[in-house]
Amino acid sequence: MSEMPTKSDLDYIFKPKSIAVIGATAKEYTIGRAILHNMIINEFRGKIFPVNPNADVIQCLKCYPNVESIPDPIDLAVIMVKKELVAETLEQCGRKNIKGAVVITSGFREIGGKGIEEEERLIEIVDRYGMRMVGPNCFGIINTDPQISINATFSKTRPRQGKVAFISQSGALGEAILDYAYQLKLGFSIFVSIGNKANVSGADMLEYLENDSRTELILLYLENFKNPRRFAEIARRVAHKKPIIAIKAGRTTAGAKAISSHTGVLATPDVGVDAMFRQCGVIRVDTVDELFDYTLAFVSQPLPKSNRVAIITNAGGPGIMATDAAVGAGLEVAPLTAESTAYLRANLPDMAAVGNPIDVIASGGPNAYGAALNAVFRDPNIDSIICIFVPPIVVDHRAVINAIAETVDRFNNCKTFLACFMNMPEIIAGHEELANRHIPIYTFPEAAARALAGLVKCAQYRNRSDGAIRTFEVDRKAAAEVVKTAAAEGRKAIMGGNAIAILRAYGINVAPTATAKTLAELVKISPQIGYPQAVKLDDPEVIHKTDVGGVVLDIGSLAEAKKAFGRLEAAFTRNGSFAGVVIQKMIRGGIETIIGMNCDPSFGPLLMFGLGGISVEVMKDVAFMMHPLTDRDAAEMIRQIKGYPLLSGFRGAAPVDHAILEETLLRLSQLVGDFPEFESLDINPFIAGAQAENSLAIDARIILK
Amino acid sequence: MSEMPTKSDLDYIFKPKSIAVIGATAKEYTIGRAILHNMIINEFRGKIFPVNPNADVIQCLKCYPNVESIPDPIDLAVIMVKKELVAETLEQCGRKNIKGAVVITSGFREIGGKGIEEEERLIEIVDRYGMRMVGPNCFGIINTDPQISINATFSKTRPRQGKVAFISQSGALGEAILDYAYQLKLGFSIFVSIGNKANVSGADMLEYLENDSRTELILLYLENFKNPRRFAEIARRVAHKKPIIAIKAGRTTAGAKAISSHTGVLATPDVGVDAMFRQCGVIRVDTVDELFDYTLAFVSQPLPKSNRVAIITNAGGPGIMATDAAVGAGLEVAPLTAESTAYLRANLPDMAAVGNPIDVIASGGPNAYGAALNAVFRDPNIDSIICIFVPPIVVDHRAVINAIAETVDRFNNCKTFLACFMNMPEIIAGHEELANRHIPIYTFPEAAARALAGLVKCAQYRNRSDGAIRTFEVDRKAAAEVVKTAAAEGRKAIMGGNAIAILRAYGINVAPTATAKTLAELVKISPQIGYPQAVKLDDPEVIHKTDVGGVVLDIGSLAEAKKAFGRLEAAFTRNGSFAGVVIQKMIRGGIETIIGMNCDPSFGPLLMFGLGGISVEVMKDVAFMMHPLTDRDAAEMIRQIKGYPLLSGFRGAAPVDHAILEETLLRLSQLVGDFPEFESLDINPFIAGAQAENSLAIDARIILK
Repeated sequence: MSEMPTKSDLDYIFKPKSIAVIGATAKEYTIGRAILHNMIINEFRGKIFPVNPNADVIQCLKCYPNVESIPDPIDLAVIMVKKELVAETLEQCGRKNIKGAVVITSGFREIGGKGIEEEERLIEIVDRYGMRMVGPNCFGIINTDPQISINATFSKTRPRQGKVAFISQSGALGEAILDYAYQLKLGFSIFVSIGNKANVSGADMLEYLENDSRTELILLYLENFKNPRRFAEIARRVAHKKPIIAIKAGRTTAGAKAISSHTGVLATPDVGVDAMFRQCGVIRVDTVDELFDYTLAFVSQPLPKSNRVAIITNAGGPGIMATDAAVGAGLEVAPLTAESTAYLRANLPDMAAVGNPIDVIASGGPNAYGAALNAVFRDPNIDSIICIFVPPIVVDHRAVINAIAETVDRFNNCKTFLACFMNMPEIIAGHEELANRHIPIYTFPEAAARALAGLVKCAQYRNRSDGAIRTFEVDRKAAAEVVKTAAAEGRKAIMGGNAIAILRAYGINVAPTATAKTLAELVKISPQIGYPQAVKLDDPEVIHKTDVGGVVLDIGSLAEAKKAFGRLEAAFTRNGSFAGVVIQKMIRGGIETIIGMNCDPSFGPLLMFGLGGISVEVMKDVAFMMHPLTDRDAAEMIRQIKGYPLLSGFRGAAPVDHAILEETLLRLSQLVGDFPEFESLDINPFIAGAQAENSLAIDARIILK
Repeated sequence: MSEMPTKSDLDYIFKPKSIAVIGATAKEYTIGRAILHNMIINEFRGKIFPVNPNADVIQCLKCYPNVESIPDPIDLAVIMVKKELVAETLEQCGRKNIKGAVVITSGFREIGGKGIEEEERLIEIVDRYGMRMVGPNCFGIINTDPQISINATFSKTRPRQGKVAFISQSGALGEAILDYAYQLKLGFSIFVSIGNKANVSGADMLEYLENDSRTELILLYLENFKNPRRFAEIARRVAHKKPIIAIKAGRTTAGAKAISSHTGVLATPDVGVDAMFRQCGVIRVDTVDELFDYTLAFVSQPLPKSNRVAIITNAGGPGIMATDAAVGAGLEVAPLTAESTAYLRANLPDMAAVGNPIDVIASGGPNAYGAALNAVFRDPNIDSIICIFVPPIVVDHRAVINAIAETVDRFNNCKTFLACFMNMPEIIAGHEELANRHIPIYTFPEAAARALAGLVKCAQYRNRSDGAIRTFEVDRKAAAEVVKTAAAEGRKAIMGGNAIAILRAYGINVAPTATAKTLAELVKISPQIGYPQAVKLDDPEVIHKTDVGGVVLDIGSLAEAKKAFGRLEAAFTRNGSFAGVVIQKMIRGGIETIIGMNCDPSFGPLLMFGLGGISVEVMKDVAFMMHPLTDRDAAEMIRQIKGYPLLSGFRGAAPVDHAILEETLLRLSQLVGDFPEFESLDINPFIAGAQAENSLAIDARIILK
């Protein structure tokens, strides 16, 4: 790959002044014809030069036999020639000093084998000439900026102008999205089908859109990440300025690599995606429907100040459904103030319900809706409103909708407002009143609640600090020595005394532990460690020590310790040599946790926290975060697991010391950052105690790459 | 309430020959005008008589001042007079010998207070005259049977004929549903807004629809149950014949009653609904969207023979999304046979993917789709098909859709088939071909996968047996004696030796236990029980024995047992009297479970099974079922918890004896059926061992109502 080019390079693609359409044809039902046609009917503001050796003129435009024969300078080449010709075409573009390319042609990396080599060739050419390229295997690009107005796609839908940017890794989905958005009257700023991402990646696009003044919301459809760590870095920054909503397909794709640690077993490929999105403030949705439900609200409404929502309805059932959906999505259907309740009691029909949800009942007309909205817009307990209207026959729709529109106007977007019309919105007289005011209208309350929850999530991310990465003073050299020795001896696993030495070097609390090679050493050390103690074989060749009788627990005296040593020495001496034992104080009380790391092939180190025992093994109740952890990440991980109540003072027990757990995670983060050769690491168990001094690592295992 | 009338009584409502519309008016924007208008334009096949003292004629029909002045016999009265007049109107109907009524008027039970009394009065009148009544507070009824053609609703949408019955507790939602269904070209057999269910309930409607030959699928929207046990009984029977899909609103409504047992804490109000639906084969959905996604598939497609689905696509992204959604919904994207793969390789374009999903790629036209469908329709590994088509510009939509339609026709519904067109289906040339063949078309693959999973669930329910209720020989009298004594002494809780005696009377395995009032008794019994043993205070006045030092564990000898007795006697003798101790063998090994019952105010006894300790208390990993349990229910409960792997032989351990766990649940089911005075019961812990004889209840507590 070439060096990272500056952002503005992408202007050649998205803000070109002249375009060569290479492979344009006059035949109907060809991509070349469709793209040329789209550029013309969308009135691209610059010059278009079709290139095709077999035509003189296409759609009234003079056609050139090749790009180099065009007399004018060209910013962007849109290429749809057959795949055997793409490389040569790019060479010509390079020679002509064209800096932007969109390659529609497919048949490269996505078909594997030879296609991968051919794509590498394209990359080489593009890098050599310092070009930027979208694709290959893509659906094209759109910029609706009226100064540009480029639609270099073969979409049948003419995009509306708007403030939403869409980045799609799937061309087919892109077309569906354009179409769906059109029906919803939703406009785009920029649309890009990034295809195989050979040169321009999702992260590049995020970076470009960060500074695109017309883009206020970024939607993503991704199937994989080229460089997730770079993506994360950029997304984290951009998400603080512009909301990012993403569909990541491929949740259930199973990983194929052999698994050799607890953390590894739990680190499914999707865990990294979830962790990254959460850490970066990217809002993840599962379906296209959900994506658009969110988008309607994001493009029009202010972010709510809290999760407290008021629901207004004229029908009981839909009110209940909205409440269910709101609570299920983490919103609070908050009690109104006494003032609001009194005001509602005075201004709504007798049979109305004046709690939250507010039910103005079927006969509630414009006045009732006006009063209900007045109350909740003023109520300090409320920061967002879902207003349901099921048009009954006896009420004038238009009057109700006008009342809603006027009240919402009067309060001037000071709270987040979503409407739900439980009939096809289009058939409700007056619905344009709301649509023109950019109020999102949903057909069912669940969709409104879901979208509102998305806004709340985004607001929470904006308000939170990313936290800081802490750096501790550690003895990196000591740890490196242990790793070096293991590597030199060809050992893949670092266990027992060695693993504990590494933890100690990084300042992680470890249960009193020492090693003894000889009985004499044991006699000296055992009383210093104290009783009860465990004596464990410390032989790196023996992996499952418990299974072979290599661990003796509950040793209460030096005499017992000596006996244990004798037994282990007798059993595990090979070729006259005995590896020695680890002597460790046994810890009573506290809660077993597991703290680990697994190196994901694309996400790099993922750090894990969970409760020990069945919580991890059966319930899979663990939290993952991407390396490096900030202090906020560490604090969140601990609170994120379902079993967290056990740590926070369950049934009157003292809560465990949170600070030491967080610090341990942060020290581990520093450790795995320093040693990229670690494939995985388990501290299992780490005993979480009520005080830092009782919070101790008992055992650890490191697997090297 | 009157005795349960026979089903055919509802024919007066749904198949009337003559109707009085009481409260009809000529004024626009009134419910009375709308209903009369709907009846006329839907061409009701019988006679209509408007009733209104202030009019002579309404919409060309002679108007009568009251129902009794109508000369003809009347089957059904549709009543929309103001609420003060409803009771008197029903009296008049009764005197006129009208057997069916639909009361639209609202202002009864739903407003509480006086409204409840007024509704009771309506019920009394209806019962007295042997009438059946839908409502009050409802939106009306529809029967599209061309022999009847009644639309007694004030809906603005004219319903299509079809085979779907819809029962809605919410009028407002009913209107939205009619409208939405119309847009989807979905027809109804019967529609009923059951309102306050004062006389005709959801269960009554299920029973009526069971024998309605035009109804093949039943949709329900419910907010609560009048008599859930009757509903369950009927639903269980009907669901074996006709699929039932339900939205139950009110998931998050918190219960208000005081909670005094483990099981009680976990038995949220929604737990009963979920348990009942699962036991009865009712498919629960959360949203109206989902309801319709399912319905489109249910009305047109055969139930699949298994969960193995093939996905066909011409675009990678949507194929991945479909796979994600399918796997997430419990479907298996199964490998194709070698024959299929070879056939596909020979008949699809070179770059096509011939696994599952099958990707015919963007250039794949009618032949490619035909070949892919041929392969999967013939493949014995496949029982259902999701066929995605993203119309690319270079392919003739109509030809592809014709190829799909013809191939599906040729295989004549032998497998379940769902289409997904990732653009608005309506704008795709040729889509009517599929719609006319009743092939469900979805816009996004997730919806198709979800609907298919619904069909699979339904097929599984149809194929499974309900299981049998087993009755064991028990000593009911002995148990009754213990309960009687507790009640006589005014005790709400039965614990310790008493609770264990009740379990024993019902043949539930209990750890060796005996009671001793005196030291002499202890000396005799303690060695019989064996060591280690526990000695626990057996005083019904002391509830939390552990907290006050009333439990001595790990007693290894008679001497220690005597010492423990002495200490407890000294500490807990009150007024010269000592309640005695329970002596119990301590059990080593096995897995702690909790088996319990909590009496739900509407669902009756709910039985619970879970793992002990944090699984129950923090993870809430428990399974509930409605009483009485069948043997299949008991077997399912055990397998339903997330921690089940711990019971089935985790990490090489011997699996616990499943039969004894199931039997214990069934014996408990029999016990709580015999003693309706039990509010709740916890067997906590019940140790699940590898053999029946090691599977033992350790402690129990029964709370009386």
